Amino acid sequence: MVRAVDLIRKKRDGGALTSEEIEWLIARYTAGEIGDDQLAAFAMAVFFRGMGGAELAALTQAMLDSGQVIDLSSVPGVKVDKHSTGGVGDKISICLAPLVAACGVPVPMISGRGLGHTGGTLDKLQAIPGFSVELDDRRFVKQVEKHGLALIGQTDTLAPADRKLYALRDVTATVESIPLISASIMSKKLAEGIDGLVLDVKVGSGAFMKTLDNARALAKTMIGIGERMNRKVRALITDMSQVLGVAVGNANETWEAIEVLRGGGPADTLELTLELGAEMLVLGKVADNLEDGRTRMVRAIKDGRGLEKLRRVVEAQGGDPTALDARENLPMARHHHTVTASQAGVIVGFDTEAIGRAGMVLGAGRAKTSDTIDPAVGLAMQVRLGERLEVGQPIAIIDYNDPALLERAQPILWAAVKLGETAPAPLPLVRERLP
Amino acid sequence: MVRAVDLIRKKRDGGALTSEEIEWLIARYTAGEIGDDQLAAFAMAVFFRGMGGAELAALTQAMLDSGQVIDLSSVPGVKVDKHSTGGVGDKISICLAPLVAACGVPVPMISGRGLGHTGGTLDKLQAIPGFSVELDDRRFVKQVEKHGLALIGQTDTLAPADRKLYALRDVTATVESIPLISASIMSKKLAEGIDGLVLDVKVGSGAFMKTLDNARALAKTMIGIGERMNRKVRALITDMSQVLGVAVGNANETWEAIEVLRGGGPADTLELTLELGAEMLVLGKVADNLEDGRTRMVRAIKDGRGLEKLRRVVEAQGGDPTALDARENLPMARHHHTVTASQAGVIVGFDTEAIGRAGMVLGAGRAKTSDTIDPAVGLAMQVRLGERLEVGQPIAIIDYNDPALLERAQPILWAAVKLGETAPAPLPLVRERLP
Repeated sequence: MVRAVDLIRKKRDGGALTSEEIEWLIARYTAGEIGDDQLAAFAMAVFFRGMGGAELAALTQAMLDSGQVIDLSSVPGVKVDKHSTGGVGDKISICLAPLVAACGVPVPMISGRGLGHTGGTLDKLQAIPGFSVELDDRRFVKQVEKHGLALIGQTDTLAPADRKLYALRDVTATVESIPLISASIMSKKLAEGIDGLVLDVKVGSGAFMKTLDNARALAKTMIGIGERMNRKVRALITDMSQVLGVAVGNANETWEAIEVLRGGGPADTLELTLELGAEMLVLGKVADNLEDGRTRMVRAIKDGRGLEKLRRVVEAQGGDPTALDARENLPMARHHHTVTASQAGVIVGFDTEAIGRAGMVLGAGRAKTSDTIDPAVGLAMQVRLGERLEVGQPIAIIDYNDPALLERAQPILWAAVKLGETAPAPLPLVRERLP
Repeated sequence: MVRAVDLIRKKRDGGALTSEEIEWLIARYTAGEIGDDQLAAFAMAVFFRGMGGAELAALTQAMLDSGQVIDLSSVPGVKVDKHSTGGVGDKISICLAPLVAACGVPVPMISGRGLGHTGGTLDKLQAIPGFSVELDDRRFVKQVEKHGLALIGQTDTLAPADRKLYALRDVTATVESIPLISASIMSKKLAEGIDGLVLDVKVGSGAFMKTLDNARALAKTMIGIGERMNRKVRALITDMSQVLGVAVGNANETWEAIEVLRGGGPADTLELTLELGAEMLVLGKVADNLEDGRTRMVRAIKDGRGLEKLRRVVEAQGGDPTALDARENLPMARHHHTVTASQAGVIVGFDTEAIGRAGMVLGAGRAKTSDTIDPAVGLAMQVRLGERLEVGQPIAIIDYNDPALLERAQPILWAAVKLGETAPAPLPLVRERLP
């Protein structure tokens, strides 16, 4: 008879579990027949021992099998989604998904909420008045059929084992495990019923992966899972050593993404949208190559098809479409404050995670899942890496509602700017492409 | 605010917890405020990262502090106990403790039950009709005052944190961790209110520690805890590459120990009794040195004081003292079967753990804690390492009640005897003395 303790011991001693063993473990855990104590010990053993490719595919499949997989066979074409491992100021999904859908690749996008220093696409989208992210599976499929795009949150039917395991990892210091992160992401994404996936693996001071080696390991692990599960997966490793774009928050980030759709937006935000979109269009067999993909993306911005796609989806999901017309139609904070430099020097680095935390402190994010978000507040970075900063020069503009929170956020921001003598060599936004 | 997840992460990343952190963790866990999930992850992190000396002393102290420490200040003299890490055929406590007490060193002995391939002193003692191992703390102290010896089982008041943590480790594959084993043993033993402790750390195929290195590490770890907690601890590393003595079971092992008290018994059983006793008499300041200690032990056998001490204690604890007079006064199995060799050769090794398992299968031990024991059954080994075995020669005599169990035990025994060409170099019974 299989016993959970024997499987834990096997992993603890560096062995590889069979697919049957992993399926058994996850199914019994989901059913509540194996307790959190045993899964916690197993997760910690995985933290130290890792998991092989076959084990990871089995774990991902077991988590998929714990719930429903959305059936998108009624939607013609190659369905493709994007997943970002999380950064600060990452509003890309909101402009990327409509552009890709406008170019003819269906995007069934299920996003998460923000926690800690990173924001979540769901929270940003919900800054649009009336916008609902809670569609059941049937309506989700119908909308992808009709518009080629739906933007929703995770439903209870998708990978419940992953939800249960993630909550456990959160309290047992087993979140930071590349195999467990990878299986978690891939099980959630594959439950969408997609054929292809583009990963935006962030690296740098604002990312979970602080080093290129770790980011590469995470990307390769997820690609490996995709290969074994017959899904096309591409990964871009992209720079998160400073805020992506300017805005950190919710309404302000959504507006920045809308600006990209309107033909504007910060250069890096546009660039990453085009790069990820080109990959998605190639995976979706709409573009012949990346160059063709970029051209198609730019065209969908110029002729307004991306903006129009988002407008249709906002309407379909109960949101106010005038939010796409003017910043004032999205929630606005009552007060604004410019944080200025008290010392001069060249910006040699940002503690980007701390900048994300400053946004969280203002009310734009959550310290714990039960916290509520103020969609109006946030900050706009006024400086970039390598710039020379003079005393009194603006670092960031803070949009706030509660002066007490401003007081708490400001010193975090100051401490997040690292000054020195000479500018570091600039990093490319897209650092690597895998495989 | 301290959070359990942060302490788990600290240990996971190789850090050392402060005494305050360990005390907080164990106290909250005992109180049920920290769950099994978090302690399981912590235990697995300790398995991989180990614990330093200060951490181990703090963990032992925290587990001690979770319950009562028996107050033996009313008993004059240096109170000394012995602990064995567990082997097959290890009945030493039953002859050792009365001899040491007879020599004038009080022995407040709290023993455990058998589980898996190892037997437990409690189960062996309970083969004596009527013998009760359940004394409350007050009666325990009174009996040590009067007889210098009590032989009981763990009470609910002693180190409850250890009991809770041990049950958790049992299902999470974190039993085999030298720091956790050490803190568990030391907290239970120090809760007896002892001043000194002699450890019998077993090494070999019938022990938990299969290698000398591991046994030495365990011994040193426990000695280190003792030093930091101002207790005198000596350790003998002793050979467990074959059954200690002849008998494996309960009534038969108790009788073998009584034979030692009666001036007989197998040579190795007598030798180990004398060696451990000499150490205890030196720790107890009754003997000047080990040689003096051995002489005193031999004298207490020859003049019958050891046997008389056990008789008084058996009477005091409600047992039938005639059990000490004849084997027939202890439970006897209905059937006997001689297992004979089907191949010839020199015995180059035993799978001693398997021999213990054969005893368990017969009904002499427990596969799980809820199993009941048949005190009458067991086996008597007829061969030793290095002996030449001819076809048809007896390997062991099995005492059994249920023929079906004999059928299961016999092939385990056969497989446990490893034959070869030349006898291995004999190992000394006492392989090392520490510190």
